[in-house]
Amino acid sequence: MGSPPHEGGHHVVIVGGGFGGLAVAQGLGSVSGIRVTLIDQRNHHLFQPLLYQVATAVLSPSEIAEPIRGILSRHQNIDVLMARVEGVDTDRRKVLLEKGDTCSYDTLVLATGATHSYFGHPEWEQAAPGLKTLEDARRIRAKVLLAFEQAERTTDAVERERLLTFAVIGGGPTGVEMAGAIAGLARNALVRDFRSIDPRSARVLLIEAAPRILNTFPEDLSTYALKALERLGVTVLTASPVDDISEEGVKVGGQLIPTAAVVWGAGVRASPAGMWLGVETDRIGHVRVGPDLSVPDRDGVYVIGDAALAIAQDGSPLPGLAQVAHQQGRYLGRALKERIQHNRPPKPFQFRSRGNLAVIGRNAAVVQWDSVKLKGFPAWLIWGVAHVYLLVGFQNRLVVSLRWLWAYLTFRRGARIIP
Amino acid sequence: MGSPPHEGGHHVVIVGGGFGGLAVAQGLGSVSGIRVTLIDQRNHHLFQPLLYQVATAVLSPSEIAEPIRGILSRHQNIDVLMARVEGVDTDRRKVLLEKGDTCSYDTLVLATGATHSYFGHPEWEQAAPGLKTLEDARRIRAKVLLAFEQAERTTDAVERERLLTFAVIGGGPTGVEMAGAIAGLARNALVRDFRSIDPRSARVLLIEAAPRILNTFPEDLSTYALKALERLGVTVLTASPVDDISEEGVKVGGQLIPTAAVVWGAGVRASPAGMWLGVETDRIGHVRVGPDLSVPDRDGVYVIGDAALAIAQDGSPLPGLAQVAHQQGRYLGRALKERIQHNRPPKPFQFRSRGNLAVIGRNAAVVQWDSVKLKGFPAWLIWGVAHVYLLVGFQNRLVVSLRWLWAYLTFRRGARIIP
Repeated sequence: MGSPPHEGGHHVVIVGGGFGGLAVAQGLGSVSGIRVTLIDQRNHHLFQPLLYQVATAVLSPSEIAEPIRGILSRHQNIDVLMARVEGVDTDRRKVLLEKGDTCSYDTLVLATGATHSYFGHPEWEQAAPGLKTLEDARRIRAKVLLAFEQAERTTDAVERERLLTFAVIGGGPTGVEMAGAIAGLARNALVRDFRSIDPRSARVLLIEAAPRILNTFPEDLSTYALKALERLGVTVLTASPVDDISEEGVKVGGQLIPTAAVVWGAGVRASPAGMWLGVETDRIGHVRVGPDLSVPDRDGVYVIGDAALAIAQDGSPLPGLAQVAHQQGRYLGRALKERIQHNRPPKPFQFRSRGNLAVIGRNAAVVQWDSVKLKGFPAWLIWGVAHVYLLVGFQNRLVVSLRWLWAYLTFRRGARIIP
Repeated sequence: MGSPPHEGGHHVVIVGGGFGGLAVAQGLGSVSGIRVTLIDQRNHHLFQPLLYQVATAVLSPSEIAEPIRGILSRHQNIDVLMARVEGVDTDRRKVLLEKGDTCSYDTLVLATGATHSYFGHPEWEQAAPGLKTLEDARRIRAKVLLAFEQAERTTDAVERERLLTFAVIGGGPTGVEMAGAIAGLARNALVRDFRSIDPRSARVLLIEAAPRILNTFPEDLSTYALKALERLGVTVLTASPVDDISEEGVKVGGQLIPTAAVVWGAGVRASPAGMWLGVETDRIGHVRVGPDLSVPDRDGVYVIGDAALAIAQDGSPLPGLAQVAHQQGRYLGRALKERIQHNRPPKPFQFRSRGNLAVIGRNAAVVQWDSVKLKGFPAWLIWGVAHVYLLVGFQNRLVVSLRWLWAYLTFRRGARIIP
């Protein structure tokens, strides 16, 4: 690779074009004396909060993905590089890329996100894909839609029941959203399209190890979500840790539940940023960072978002949410500008919660913001408006709004293609 | 599989959910005394005329694909089966499916379309994918977009030139559309997004063996198209048969043109319908059919669309166009209904040309309809309106119109994701 094309100035290298990395880049865009290189192994920023809607055929991949280059193109001081990072040499201040290429930095920001964790059972991944990338979403969409197609073809009643059983592991927001959306697909979107099977007879299971679902929400909202899911036809199993997952099905409490489609929404693990830096991490790979999000003993290196373990004002670790990554990115953009241009040390990062949202299905969601708690239609409306607003790109906002309006009015879904 | 669920009545089995097969099914929908099974290996009807826009990042796959089940769901006498057909047993009147399943028919319609043909060089397919399916389109989109990404990364000037050279083989409508759309991508959509390369320096080649492009159009429209392509920055090589295609590039007239992205738009070959039936075909696999589209010596079997060689009133073979397949499908739906319900023999099929269209790029297209010839903006407008009108599904029409409007106003493209 050699050195980047725009010489001169302090070189900030950002790895990862998610909510955090993008916000840092935007904060440093068109700032004189600073040049930025954003490296991502994909060409697009992905709006992960709506990924479950791609997996359940409501939206199309390109509607929640926007080319990183396009987002940053107006800033002449920003280079975007599509490349896979394989390590960091902190002594020589170089990011190591595939094919032996390197990229030198003065300041390095690792915003590399998280991936799935199968709690020591990597063999479960094959049968129970998680939902982090567009490929994951396409794969789950194909799996779910194919199960209905195969059920229509089979004459074996036991096999048909297996094909029409869907299991979602993990009762956090992702699991709740997936379970609700699969139930909506079976109950509404597909209902008139089959002749041999009744899609409404599909069983959708949401399996959670803890005593209640949505356990980061107040208990009454959890209870509401449970009831709303049951109204949609979802069977919720709480206090039910999974023993095993295979192509045959899911084993819970010693019982095998035969199913062809399992979706993993239970565990995440931070990306290998900690390994690259050779620093201490917590059990699931988060890099411990200081109040300014810098990594102790690694000069000029910062970690933000799902890859970091940052501590809130009250001493609790910050959750792995898009809003945390985004706020950290905005903070770090401003802080780096101050430090590089004026050599001023930054104030510590302070997280301000924008509220906690989870959607269950049509007209059903939960919102918690400080002491404010909402559920049902008002919460659902806030969820929808907030997500359209937060999407990147005017065209995506328009198309997503249209698809939602259409889906709401017709009960059908616009992206039902395999794969 | 056993027998389909709706017993009783004459059973029409249609293989293929393209323009032809779908039109037959729609013609027989809700007709009493007839039951229909439509078999397709995919779950969606694909609007192939706009596939090149998926390959060049204007549209998203789901915007030109609609689930076959959804299109036909209001007809209770129609079953849709997602399965791969492996043969036909005309003696026992059975369609042979994968996994040893079979499907019995009284009347069989094969509407299985066409695939690419590499003129005896199947080894070219790897480096020069054709454009028939959504997978093809995604693959070409990734190839084209990745070439720009890799060119931005490389410091080797020769390699950069190779990466920024795109070759489209075949000067028919597909080739012209692809070449124009790639040039538009390089000249407009990507222009502000790179720092090391200038996307406008990309070379787009359209390579045609015959003396002129669009040779099914009148000569003055071919000349117009040639000039319009050159204005877009496309280099058109006519009378230039391809000698070889490999990962290194394309060999034309003994010269190797190094390129990383070759798209094949030159040859098609009918699907294996003729082989399944064990009947005579022409050189590229078309099944010869009679004036009523039936296959001689194969009782109750019809072949339509790109799989068939039908003869027009003037003795010439009908071209492989969506409108031919669609009209044959509509004709056959009506004819089968008459024959099955009233035992009336049908009048021969008559093709009525709806005009010949090809689009080159922004404000540039050619239209020929009998003696009417149009080019430039009016032709482009007709092309656009006709294609939105012909799309299946209200939502797709709306979203495609929006994306086109947005692309027209901003010069940008809404589906620039890899892969």
